[in-house]
Amino acid sequence: VVGSVALDTVKTPFGQVEDVLGGAVSYFSLGASLYDRVNMLAVVGEDFPRRYIDEFRARRIDTTGLYMMPGKTFRWGADYHLDMNSRDTLYTELGVFGDFQPEVPDEYRRSDLLFLATIQPTLQLHVLKQARAAGTVQLTALDTIELWINTAREDLIEVIRHVDVLLLAEEEARQIAETPSLRTAARYILGLGPKTLVVKQGQYGALMFGADGSFFAAPAYPLDEVRDPTGAGDSFAGGFLGYLGQRLSSGARLTAADYRRALIHGNILGSFTCEDFSVERLRTLTPEQIAARYHEFVTFTHFEGDWRD
Amino acid sequence: VVGSVALDTVKTPFGQVEDVLGGAVSYFSLGASLYDRVNMLAVVGEDFPRRYIDEFRARRIDTTGLYMMPGKTFRWGADYHLDMNSRDTLYTELGVFGDFQPEVPDEYRRSDLLFLATIQPTLQLHVLKQARAAGTVQLTALDTIELWINTAREDLIEVIRHVDVLLLAEEEARQIAETPSLRTAARYILGLGPKTLVVKQGQYGALMFGADGSFFAAPAYPLDEVRDPTGAGDSFAGGFLGYLGQRLSSGARLTAADYRRALIHGNILGSFTCEDFSVERLRTLTPEQIAARYHEFVTFTHFEGDWRD
Repeated sequence: VVGSVALDTVKTPFGQVEDVLGGAVSYFSLGASLYDRVNMLAVVGEDFPRRYIDEFRARRIDTTGLYMMPGKTFRWGADYHLDMNSRDTLYTELGVFGDFQPEVPDEYRRSDLLFLATIQPTLQLHVLKQARAAGTVQLTALDTIELWINTAREDLIEVIRHVDVLLLAEEEARQIAETPSLRTAARYILGLGPKTLVVKQGQYGALMFGADGSFFAAPAYPLDEVRDPTGAGDSFAGGFLGYLGQRLSSGARLTAADYRRALIHGNILGSFTCEDFSVERLRTLTPEQIAARYHEFVTFTHFEGDWRD
Repeated sequence: VVGSVALDTVKTPFGQVEDVLGGAVSYFSLGASLYDRVNMLAVVGEDFPRRYIDEFRARRIDTTGLYMMPGKTFRWGADYHLDMNSRDTLYTELGVFGDFQPEVPDEYRRSDLLFLATIQPTLQLHVLKQARAAGTVQLTALDTIELWINTAREDLIEVIRHVDVLLLAEEEARQIAETPSLRTAARYILGLGPKTLVVKQGQYGALMFGADGSFFAAPAYPLDEVRDPTGAGDSFAGGFLGYLGQRLSSGARLTAADYRRALIHGNILGSFTCEDFSVERLRTLTPEQIAARYHEFVTFTHFEGDWRD
């Protein structure tokens, strides 16, 4: 995984935290490491707390590519509104992340899955080319944000053409395709090259469109309380790709059924992350808790019988 | 079913219609009559087109209780915004609907299911008492709108205490329970008396909470194009209660599995209604088309296997 490691300051109606572990790569790695080994490619400043690096290393996360550069770590601050569906970004201080030139360490060149989390599309393409040159990557996935859709559209379309899976929030899919219809947006995006489009709908679950015309929809896990939705999308990617990576590591050929199960794992990890601030819930999450929630998903989505039954 | 029959003027980005058949009872009845017989209790003015009444009668809809009163039919006009998720109500002319005093005809007194569509809560309670006095009603269901939550809260709570099933839009459930958490809202509402709460989430599907702690979630049918969402919620009720009514008519005792299938039928009828203006799509809808969409639902929501598979 390549992307951001950050220090977040977040306020929600349930409380607030200051300069705590954040960034797409942190959420993704802590989530995906519950399924398989993760190689982390990111940059932090000299102010980055050593304990977070120790925490990554204590799990199945390789930090060879977590470069420490002179300067400050990427910092982000946000206030969530009462309904938790919108937030005000208070500040974005890029620090050393602003000059990030990701180079894939030799140690990572045997990865079979690559996740390009949100960074500038030209950097995503740069990492993709390095990974492809290594020759072992079997599955590539990409996430982005509105900023790059608006300011680097051509570069973004170029990198989209070269990945297998696209993970987008609902509004991002509509913006890329410039249409209000999600199905039309999916056809446009899949027409560019990807084989799979995952549309994240937050509290409403997720949809998955295949280039073969297949479609899958799963509702979200019904949480009693969303304490902090920060990182839910990156945790979703951690569950989705962590599960697929585990399958690849075991030598399996990915099937349509694997992708469907992966989407449920994405929903599950996204839901756990919302239960507490920062990466707090991912810290204590166990495979048994994931399994229990998976079984709940089976139970609360299952229906049977013919329509006349 | 008791509620409104109206003449709607609606404009969406896809076109517009003027003084066409609308109102909760129209959508509900045309939908539910695909499953079972429907007894209609509503009022129209002398200006109500005869052809609409003929249309009801040509289906399994009894119009004995569709009273024609001196004056004008309820008229409603609305403009939908580009995203189709919000609309401006241009006018609401109650006409004879403003003085509606619903009296259940003797012919209806052997109904086994009662749907109280949106009208003033005291009138809903009045009809409920008449239906209960007849003694054959096995299942009662209620819908409402924000207007009554805000202006007749106590009366609304009173009628909620006496029905089996509540059908609410997501925001209405939150408003009634005065909490942002849907799960908390469900507990509050089910604590008042109903055995089942259905939360309609429009383009995102629907949730069903049981007083026994059960939970079911189903995504929406992914439409290529929403031409006019008017009546989708009433059509949802038509599919949901039409299916349950058909089961009751066949002498079945309703099971949890029936309720789950009913929710899928609700989603299906809601989705069909969005495909065209007014009740247009319900006019041509066939049981075979419902069956085909039901099978699509099974296909695009199904996933299997244990989490480690």
